[in-house]
Amino acid sequence: MKMLINVPETVVTDALRGLAAAHPELTVDVENRVVVRRDAPVEGKVALVSGGGSGHEPLHSGFVGRGMLDAACPGEVFTSPVPDQMARAAAAVDSGAGVLFVIKNYTGDVLNFDMAAELAEDEGVQVAKVIVNDDVAVTDSLYTAGRRGTGGTLFVERLAGAAAEEGAPLDRVAALAQRVNDGCRSFGVALSACSTPAKGGPTFDLPPGELELGIGIHGEPGRERRAMMTSGEIADAAVDAVVTDLRPDGPVFLLVNGMGGTPLLELYGFNAEVRRALGERGVPVVRTLVGNYVTSLDMAGASVTLCRADDELLRLWDSPVRTPALRWGC
Amino acid sequence: MKMLINVPETVVTDALRGLAAAHPELTVDVENRVVVRRDAPVEGKVALVSGGGSGHEPLHSGFVGRGMLDAACPGEVFTSPVPDQMARAAAAVDSGAGVLFVIKNYTGDVLNFDMAAELAEDEGVQVAKVIVNDDVAVTDSLYTAGRRGTGGTLFVERLAGAAAEEGAPLDRVAALAQRVNDGCRSFGVALSACSTPAKGGPTFDLPPGELELGIGIHGEPGRERRAMMTSGEIADAAVDAVVTDLRPDGPVFLLVNGMGGTPLLELYGFNAEVRRALGERGVPVVRTLVGNYVTSLDMAGASVTLCRADDELLRLWDSPVRTPALRWGC
Repeated sequence: MKMLINVPETVVTDALRGLAAAHPELTVDVENRVVVRRDAPVEGKVALVSGGGSGHEPLHSGFVGRGMLDAACPGEVFTSPVPDQMARAAAAVDSGAGVLFVIKNYTGDVLNFDMAAELAEDEGVQVAKVIVNDDVAVTDSLYTAGRRGTGGTLFVERLAGAAAEEGAPLDRVAALAQRVNDGCRSFGVALSACSTPAKGGPTFDLPPGELELGIGIHGEPGRERRAMMTSGEIADAAVDAVVTDLRPDGPVFLLVNGMGGTPLLELYGFNAEVRRALGERGVPVVRTLVGNYVTSLDMAGASVTLCRADDELLRLWDSPVRTPALRWGC
Repeated sequence: MKMLINVPETVVTDALRGLAAAHPELTVDVENRVVVRRDAPVEGKVALVSGGGSGHEPLHSGFVGRGMLDAACPGEVFTSPVPDQMARAAAAVDSGAGVLFVIKNYTGDVLNFDMAAELAEDEGVQVAKVIVNDDVAVTDSLYTAGRRGTGGTLFVERLAGAAAEEGAPLDRVAALAQRVNDGCRSFGVALSACSTPAKGGPTFDLPPGELELGIGIHGEPGRERRAMMTSGEIADAAVDAVVTDLRPDGPVFLLVNGMGGTPLLELYGFNAEVRRALGERGVPVVRTLVGNYVTSLDMAGASVTLCRADDELLRLWDSPVRTPALRWGC
């Protein structure tokens, strides 16, 4: 597998150098691997810190900025960052109002953020945590006890970030993040495996003519492998899985997320089928994002995330956000 | 090659249905394949219309909105739209102030936009045209007489769109578009071929361990095929080709553009090397975009576009823009 890289060992460092060069509104500590919004710490504001393995860009570094994250800590590809990174990020962004750690539910991330919380608290930083576990495909997987955190992370980071920007205190920001997570469900499909720089080739074997339903964002196995399906059939399967679990009784936010290697032309076509499938099930959509947001390197495929919406969340969603990957209102 | 589609025949229509569902700020005529900003025609404003084959998303439909295009006409994959589409788009967005056609230099597009201009003028619409031809890799290619239009299209559409939004008359918007095009140069590299829905597999053969330098956005052959290179070596080759041709004597805008299948992690790493290469050649960068903007379906690879900047263009660049793919300031 050919990659646009120098050597596998410097992939994350090179990307951080490139992120710093492209985005003067971020402060990038390349050596310590911490990405911080340039105006942090923001006086009186609760700070949001997230992080996880690299390879899911724009998550999380592309979500740093006004109205979303205050800092992100990228680990090696598909590998948790270390507690020292997270504690360093917390110290860099805490204004005294406390820090919320947004943690995708993978065993390594959860353990390391727990240790980082202890380190930060030892330094006098007040820490709250939310664990994102929106993926309905499997309970327990290669890297997780319980459900995995995938596309729902975007909604937690955006909506809790907006609440923090408005001046909500730590307990309210944490409660809102938990509420958003509890209202999120995702289901993903892979048409191809991804290739990691370290391995140099596909991380698993997915034969021609087959797809994997319920895939994770690291190529972890899903629910089942099937003969290739149409966009409409995939939309029905994904929407069924998500709606059956979430049982929405009102409007939802919709994320039609590319895994990285599927063209935008196909993602928009898939969105048409997802909307049809939601319409047939009586689920109204208030806002839609279509694109590559929570990716798995060059994997072909897509995921569907629904997030329960209400007036408060809709107002927060529409408030100004200014990050490399999401930007409106400012 | 597995694709997230229903059948090849409905790929463009399905994508337009999905675009309409995701973006209520656009009016999408799915049957006639015309995408229009919802508030068009804007009283007294020159309108910009572009279009071309599908498969390059977000170009052009993702660039429709305030501060950029008023309308886009998507053709079939890698196939020019027809004159009737373009004339229909012009009629839909003309406020009486005239329409600028932004045309990538491919023989079919140029001929069809010429015919559309005649149709529109017969209906009393004043039309000006700019042909984008920024690709330094080859003169004449499979689909072009002269240089191809690639990443420079983004700068022409954005900067001329901003001038039109400010109320500049048609002759000034057209002159500015021409000036921007004359200050743009691009060079692209493919690590893999793209697969079209109609063909169902790669459009050309690029063996393992080789890359193609100077590729177009339809998989047209480039300058030369070489053994695989590092990100730094590719950056040097691309920057050399662009800088030798453009000979910039001041600051530039930089687009580090993914062809569709290359992960954002790699694109940011490539941006670091492009910036190094530009720094070594004494070229200052005032604004940078990194991401998939002018793509070639699922092709792996990237292109580098430089666009000469000055105070006027910088002010136009930073003015509000609100499209699916580029959005800031509003």
